[in-house]
Amino acid sequence: MNRIITIGREFGSGGRTIAKMTGEKLGIKVYDNELLIKIAKESGLAQAYVAEKSENLTLSDLIGRSLSGFGTYNQVLVEDNLWKMQSEVILDLAKKETCIIVGRCADYILKDKADCLKIFVYASLEERINRIVSVYGESDVAPEKRLKDKDKRRSLFYNYFTDMKWGDPHNYDICLNSGILGFEKCVDIISSLY
Amino acid sequence: MNRIITIGREFGSGGRTIAKMTGEKLGIKVYDNELLIKIAKESGLAQAYVAEKSENLTLSDLIGRSLSGFGTYNQVLVEDNLWKMQSEVILDLAKKETCIIVGRCADYILKDKADCLKIFVYASLEERINRIVSVYGESDVAPEKRLKDKDKRRSLFYNYFTDMKWGDPHNYDICLNSGILGFEKCVDIISSLY
Repeated sequence: MNRIITIGREFGSGGRTIAKMTGEKLGIKVYDNELLIKIAKESGLAQAYVAEKSENLTLSDLIGRSLSGFGTYNQVLVEDNLWKMQSEVILDLAKKETCIIVGRCADYILKDKADCLKIFVYASLEERINRIVSVYGESDVAPEKRLKDKDKRRSLFYNYFTDMKWGDPHNYDICLNSGILGFEKCVDIISSLY
Repeated sequence: MNRIITIGREFGSGGRTIAKMTGEKLGIKVYDNELLIKIAKESGLAQAYVAEKSENLTLSDLIGRSLSGFGTYNQVLVEDNLWKMQSEVILDLAKKETCIIVGRCADYILKDKADCLKIFVYASLEERINRIVSVYGESDVAPEKRLKDKDKRRSLFYNYFTDMKWGDPHNYDICLNSGILGFEKCVDIISSLY
């Protein structure tokens, strides 16, 4: 197995940008959307579906799961299969090359299986609101609600599939407040630890 | 106000040692037990009492508080007074000199009042158990219970007096897993951010 950097991140914290900048600095590949494409290809599922389901769970998904019994609920089967596929793609990547993987519970999937540097990037609500408005623009939904919804879906997914708590520092080697430290400094720290 | 480094830490994570090493490297003073001595002197309370009460709350303390009404419960008055005194001593320090302050909610007390670099040091339960046994020796109480009790008392205190959540990354600029990164690397990172 190769040395892998996994980057978990809060929505709007700039974790994806920090991953790209770190990849450029270290000269290693970054898997973010590229991972989605790979998973969609291997699973035969649509990319938009994979994007939505590969790290998000809603409360109604969870209720559906608890009511579904064994294999009676088609959506659950597809989602569990996606989780299996996603785990295989990530394990396969780690075998093939040294790289950076953004999100998708890679820290958990590679636990005890690859030599991982596990990063979590976060920022204050205020910083993240400013950032999503400037990067993704305004929408009908207030940015604070967009942020909280997205964080909630990601944490439900992570907590459900990993049995750990999303954003708990103990799951990571280092947690970086990108709003305070700035992206450059985050990249420097990650590179120096690699 | 001077530039201050505050270091919150889980019991057994080596946060205090990392503070000392960083102080030596940067040539600035570290307040840990020295802070206790100062607070005891200014409050007229015994040092052992200050050590116990300056960052620990038990569940029975909390119940006592909720039953105490207004000023009818002597212990609460003394504790609240200690909190006030502690806040004043920390604010006073920040006015006088650039330094490192370990624990005692300094990150909260100095919030928006001093130029702070806010660090949290943590480690896995396993790493911390090994460490407290090797540093403090065995005792009648199992090390895991000692750790959990101490963390609980610190977090109850922090959450009660600050209205924030102890160990939540959002309260800090960076969170360091000392068990994975090692003390030297933690010191390097803190120094490079200072």
